[in-house]
Amino acid sequence: MTNNAPPQAQPNQDGDHVSLTTPLLSRHRSTPNSSSQVAIVGANICPIESLDYEIVENDFFRQDWRARGSIHIFQYIFMKWLLCFLIGIIVSLIGFFNNLAVENIAGIKFVVTSNMMLMGRYGMAFLVFSVSNLVLTFFAASLTAFAAPVAAGSGIPEVKAYLNGVDAPGILSFRTLVVKIFGNITAVSSSLLVGKAGPMVHTGACVASLMGQGGSKKFSMTWKWLGYFKNDRDQRDLITCGSAAGIAAAFRAPVGGVLFALEEMASWWRSALLWRAFFTTAVVAIVLRGLIDVCLSGKCGLFGKGGLIMFDVYSKSVSYHLTDVPSVLLLGVIGGVLGSLYNFILDKVLRFYNQIKKKGFVYKIFLACFISIFTSCLLFGLPWLASCQPCPFDAAEACPTIGRSGNYKKFQCPPDHYNDLASLIFNTNDDAIRNLFSKNTNSEFQYSSILIFFVTCFFLSIFSCGIVAPVGLFVPVIVTGASYGRFVGMLVGSNSNLNHGLYAVLGATSFLGGSMRMTVSLCVIILELTNNLLLLPLIMLVLLVSKTVADTFNGNIYDLIMKAKGFPYLEAHAEPYMRQLTVGDVVTGPLQIFHGIEKVGKIVHVLKTTRHNGFPVVDEPSVSQSAVLYGLILREHLIVLLKKRAFLSTSVPTGDHALRPFSAEDFAKKSSGNSDKIEDIELTEEEMEMFLDLHPFTNTSPYTVVETMSLAKALVLFREIGLRHLLVIPKIPSISPVVGILTRHDFMPEHVLGLQPLLITSRWKRLRIRFPNLLKLLGSHAG
Amino acid sequence: MTNNAPPQAQPNQDGDHVSLTTPLLSRHRSTPNSSSQVAIVGANICPIESLDYEIVENDFFRQDWRARGSIHIFQYIFMKWLLCFLIGIIVSLIGFFNNLAVENIAGIKFVVTSNMMLMGRYGMAFLVFSVSNLVLTFFAASLTAFAAPVAAGSGIPEVKAYLNGVDAPGILSFRTLVVKIFGNITAVSSSLLVGKAGPMVHTGACVASLMGQGGSKKFSMTWKWLGYFKNDRDQRDLITCGSAAGIAAAFRAPVGGVLFALEEMASWWRSALLWRAFFTTAVVAIVLRGLIDVCLSGKCGLFGKGGLIMFDVYSKSVSYHLTDVPSVLLLGVIGGVLGSLYNFILDKVLRFYNQIKKKGFVYKIFLACFISIFTSCLLFGLPWLASCQPCPFDAAEACPTIGRSGNYKKFQCPPDHYNDLASLIFNTNDDAIRNLFSKNTNSEFQYSSILIFFVTCFFLSIFSCGIVAPVGLFVPVIVTGASYGRFVGMLVGSNSNLNHGLYAVLGATSFLGGSMRMTVSLCVIILELTNNLLLLPLIMLVLLVSKTVADTFNGNIYDLIMKAKGFPYLEAHAEPYMRQLTVGDVVTGPLQIFHGIEKVGKIVHVLKTTRHNGFPVVDEPSVSQSAVLYGLILREHLIVLLKKRAFLSTSVPTGDHALRPFSAEDFAKKSSGNSDKIEDIELTEEEMEMFLDLHPFTNTSPYTVVETMSLAKALVLFREIGLRHLLVIPKIPSISPVVGILTRHDFMPEHVLGLQPLLITSRWKRLRIRFPNLLKLLGSHAG
Repeated sequence: MTNNAPPQAQPNQDGDHVSLTTPLLSRHRSTPNSSSQVAIVGANICPIESLDYEIVENDFFRQDWRARGSIHIFQYIFMKWLLCFLIGIIVSLIGFFNNLAVENIAGIKFVVTSNMMLMGRYGMAFLVFSVSNLVLTFFAASLTAFAAPVAAGSGIPEVKAYLNGVDAPGILSFRTLVVKIFGNITAVSSSLLVGKAGPMVHTGACVASLMGQGGSKKFSMTWKWLGYFKNDRDQRDLITCGSAAGIAAAFRAPVGGVLFALEEMASWWRSALLWRAFFTTAVVAIVLRGLIDVCLSGKCGLFGKGGLIMFDVYSKSVSYHLTDVPSVLLLGVIGGVLGSLYNFILDKVLRFYNQIKKKGFVYKIFLACFISIFTSCLLFGLPWLASCQPCPFDAAEACPTIGRSGNYKKFQCPPDHYNDLASLIFNTNDDAIRNLFSKNTNSEFQYSSILIFFVTCFFLSIFSCGIVAPVGLFVPVIVTGASYGRFVGMLVGSNSNLNHGLYAVLGATSFLGGSMRMTVSLCVIILELTNNLLLLPLIMLVLLVSKTVADTFNGNIYDLIMKAKGFPYLEAHAEPYMRQLTVGDVVTGPLQIFHGIEKVGKIVHVLKTTRHNGFPVVDEPSVSQSAVLYGLILREHLIVLLKKRAFLSTSVPTGDHALRPFSAEDFAKKSSGNSDKIEDIELTEEEMEMFLDLHPFTNTSPYTVVETMSLAKALVLFREIGLRHLLVIPKIPSISPVVGILTRHDFMPEHVLGLQPLLITSRWKRLRIRFPNLLKLLGSHAG
Repeated sequence: MTNNAPPQAQPNQDGDHVSLTTPLLSRHRSTPNSSSQVAIVGANICPIESLDYEIVENDFFRQDWRARGSIHIFQYIFMKWLLCFLIGIIVSLIGFFNNLAVENIAGIKFVVTSNMMLMGRYGMAFLVFSVSNLVLTFFAASLTAFAAPVAAGSGIPEVKAYLNGVDAPGILSFRTLVVKIFGNITAVSSSLLVGKAGPMVHTGACVASLMGQGGSKKFSMTWKWLGYFKNDRDQRDLITCGSAAGIAAAFRAPVGGVLFALEEMASWWRSALLWRAFFTTAVVAIVLRGLIDVCLSGKCGLFGKGGLIMFDVYSKSVSYHLTDVPSVLLLGVIGGVLGSLYNFILDKVLRFYNQIKKKGFVYKIFLACFISIFTSCLLFGLPWLASCQPCPFDAAEACPTIGRSGNYKKFQCPPDHYNDLASLIFNTNDDAIRNLFSKNTNSEFQYSSILIFFVTCFFLSIFSCGIVAPVGLFVPVIVTGASYGRFVGMLVGSNSNLNHGLYAVLGATSFLGGSMRMTVSLCVIILELTNNLLLLPLIMLVLLVSKTVADTFNGNIYDLIMKAKGFPYLEAHAEPYMRQLTVGDVVTGPLQIFHGIEKVGKIVHVLKTTRHNGFPVVDEPSVSQSAVLYGLILREHLIVLLKKRAFLSTSVPTGDHALRPFSAEDFAKKSSGNSDKIEDIELTEEEMEMFLDLHPFTNTSPYTVVETMSLAKALVLFREIGLRHLLVIPKIPSISPVVGILTRHDFMPEHVLGLQPLLITSRWKRLRIRFPNLLKLLGSHAG
């Protein structure tokens, strides 16, 4: 977020002492909050709207609510379950289609290349390989850059921000969905070191959002019967289910999907939602299971029996003893250090890429193409460094294999020999992971090959992640982690009861834990991926260690990206210094207030000259000598009233008649970017002189805080309930019954610190700089 | 909860019409809220206190907070993790000890009995069997009845209510812990059809609570360095972790434990808590794993290699096709119907038992002994009904087995024959489940035996559950479900690809889903119990169907028990009719208000004559003509002030000096039942005439609502933030700056409907009676 007023730090040598004895701040009404909320969405700077989860309890709502029969209630509930069912079906079909397409496109590429190499035409093979990669990358990058720049990246930060109440334009549109699907297929097929899990989450969220809105208006694909949930609350629920379905489809991990949505994505959660997300992912699991049965009969081309991503490492008797614990702990520590380093470098690279991308389309696409060519050279060139190994006598699989899949790649080697580095690097990522996880192959890889592979993956995945294409992070992180895990396993060698494949699993776990910092959800995803419950205690141990180590250095990768993009994410806990401030210290003016019966001209003027979304409605003094707060009215509702021209000629209220011309449909939330604008409403001079009775449309139960409430507590209220506006009322009755309105922006640390420069020098701030994560922890404890 | 004023329903034939056109309620200040909050805790009626999760932001807190260095913060965080670690260690040791004790006590009993039967001394065998059961039950029941009646039952409803903010005396005390452990061991060993998982949850919660309070004061076992977390927020976190550890230790299901705590137990959840609960259960998993390694070497007596409850049903290739789905769906439907029936009967039986138990100790113990004798007769008598079966040629295990464990019990049969009913019924519950889950034993059981077993289990578990001993529900439900699951499997026979053991697993899942209504957590617990991830889609399907079917009939078993016990559980969603009410309609008087500088005599008088826990503090009129709300002060803080005698001789404030005599320790929350009472403080006449400056100790940031706020929205605020007091302020400035205080009780549907009898006849109420669960769903959607 841009913070236009640079905090003017006033050097204060004696800050500690001062802060202990005097109030930190002089009470003053702050200057207008002029910093706008923008975010970098797909390398463009976009305005951001907040979502509103509050129920608008006005007369209209109450009548509508009372008039609803049990049929309506049944219909609502039935539709909500039906939508979850449909989301599950569609997301699983898309996930399956993605995998099918990737496996076939990449598969054909590898088969053709390998055949050429078998004939000794190495130069031609490289040409075919690199050109096909380049074409695929070019397609993905140009599609994304021209059609929907928002679709670039994994999409998880965007969806996470949306579920926190931040609506950036276009992130859940139909166009984004299409680009996400096809862009991701081509990007992954082009042998870039990128994943498909993150994009599947975004895809799931898009599907859910479109279903909830009843289709896409722009592409005139709308189904009225679906448009039942045109409000932010229901949309939030559906999108949470959609993102759970996305992970479930990507990893065939239904329980992991629910937990991922719960732990990483959602900012608000209810047990009813757990139940519905579980239903959605169960549908995904069952559909995928059916489709794989179809594929097992060989009707899916090169989409083999490996199925979706699924690395079965089950062995009947995994036995491990106390002696294995040190090496597992070591893996955890390595994962934590490497994970936080990964996050750090990735953040820097993304910021650097953003500078390049800002220069225009050509630069964006050139960058992607450059990365593609670089990747092709590495993938094709590095295996030549590895020496050929003779095939083992007792190999469980064919050795060497030609074409794709299989543990032992022939590459340039003579017959009965294989190239171990090629088996990893000259392969799809899924197959590389499968090779690393494989058991009874302890002597397959050389130290040097694994090390080269690890370094390549580590940096290549960082450089590939920021290109303008829909690419995810999960698979690169798994592959990188598995490589050093296997390396550690080889070092430990026969001193351990665990085979090298299990070390690779633990390595992947540790690197995931170190960079993504999830706990339960990662644990379950890994278990579901590897189908080995006996590893559970070791996986938990590794995750605990790696997350703890990494948390001391920096934050979770998605939070870093979200911050870099500028989404005003509202944390659940308050910063410690917010306890020293009251809401009166941060509330900004000037405040626009409407009267209960207001002149049309004034409403139009205010709507045109401000960008506020909620306005307090006050009633004229009657018994008391000061005005009385009646409630809060929303901009979008005012625009509906103006459009319907339900005006009064005099300032006398008409009562319930005012509600007649309106239906619930009128007040339904428009999909993002499609809302009506005040500029589109043309009113005559005469109409401008008329009046509007705002009472029936005013939310009479807005949440309020007294101006002396501490900012930290107001933040807890704002965040826990999911508000867009929080009215501040005066402590001592004064002329105006409302002091101001707090919005998301007023709680952002950047804004608060900008208003209160003294805080920068106070000890909290210094403590915060010294131990950023420590205080975060403390804040979350105390909150 | 008792509701002393029976709602006076005013018959109104035209309720629907009236409610649509006129305001539902005339505005009137209600009568004093005199109904007391009590619950049936262990068959006694106990007063209930609410817990307070709000941070008291007074001057004292702010100074204390600012004075804390980073050392304090480190110490706090370190101690919190250390406590979680210790909770994990202790709970896993207790869980292991429980299992060891049960396996050995019950094991010896079965070995002795079987040996006697082998010698043909059947009468003697029955005598030994039933007398040993009776003695064990008598011990468990009398221990519970005399030492800690609170420890009876599973304890899950009590802990769930505690985590919702309801504190009943003694439920987490050291005495309860001891009784819970030993009572449960003896009850389970006595062959009653009762479980040990629920009591483990309660045990975990007790351990966590005692650790957080730094030991038990009553037994003079206190460690000062542990007493770091003497406030309700930190206690809540620890107890959540403790209950997760309980399930983890009972089922060796660490991930399932976290999810159980999240889905079933906790009312508030933060991602930091997920992480800490995960840590706790990881410790449990690792410790248990180590202990089992010790036992595998045969040093644990009869505690065999079965380990803890762990039913390994892994088979390399579970294949199932579309044809298996109908029978799985059937299982789901049966589970839903039976589960809700089970809940219904259990609720009735528990209420009937309560009538008996109220009559006194003798009745309680007699009831338990009667159930024990009845159970012994059934267990020993029923197998005689079953005909002896010849041992199969290809049995994987010894046939017949003598003593305990094993699939084929000899019982009264001739050599080379076994009694299939005895294999199930004359066995520990764990072994019965293991037999039912076993694969490659499709022809082991006869239809009649399974059916007899199912009916016996269904009713026996209902009648055993309510006795005055620490007994759980999980294992009885699993055993009952597994029996009809196996029965369905036998009916389907060779038409299915699934073996009968897998049908038993699915049956157990369906019955769990039908009675406990959990989703993700049950799914993961079943997976961790059976160690077979390939079943996942089927398990999800069964859970979905059984929960959906059962939800149409009644609620979750723990909620029913909680309701029967009278805990004022605060739901997360508002009842629909609450949208028609404002907080002004339910707030009750008279209100006791203190001035900023108040006379000691008045404070003492108010504290002695009321039982309120929070009092508004108002300042005298200064600039405006009406008094100003300064904040809220708590009863316990007032008592601390009175005890310290920090009085002023005149009504002039002294500023920060007032804080001097106090340390943070003074304001720490006392453990339940140990708080100081106003009656214990003796003040002289002179002191009563002095003054107290309440300002520095008043929470200046209490949450407030305007009196016209809708009750539904106030409930959301109250519940989401976890308040104990919610101040209601007037809409129009009046003489008093505060209209009243809302507490948990004011939001209870019973209380609201009692105050507003008109609502009973209104359509919402009727709708609510017709479709109780439907509206609950709707409420949770709209909330």
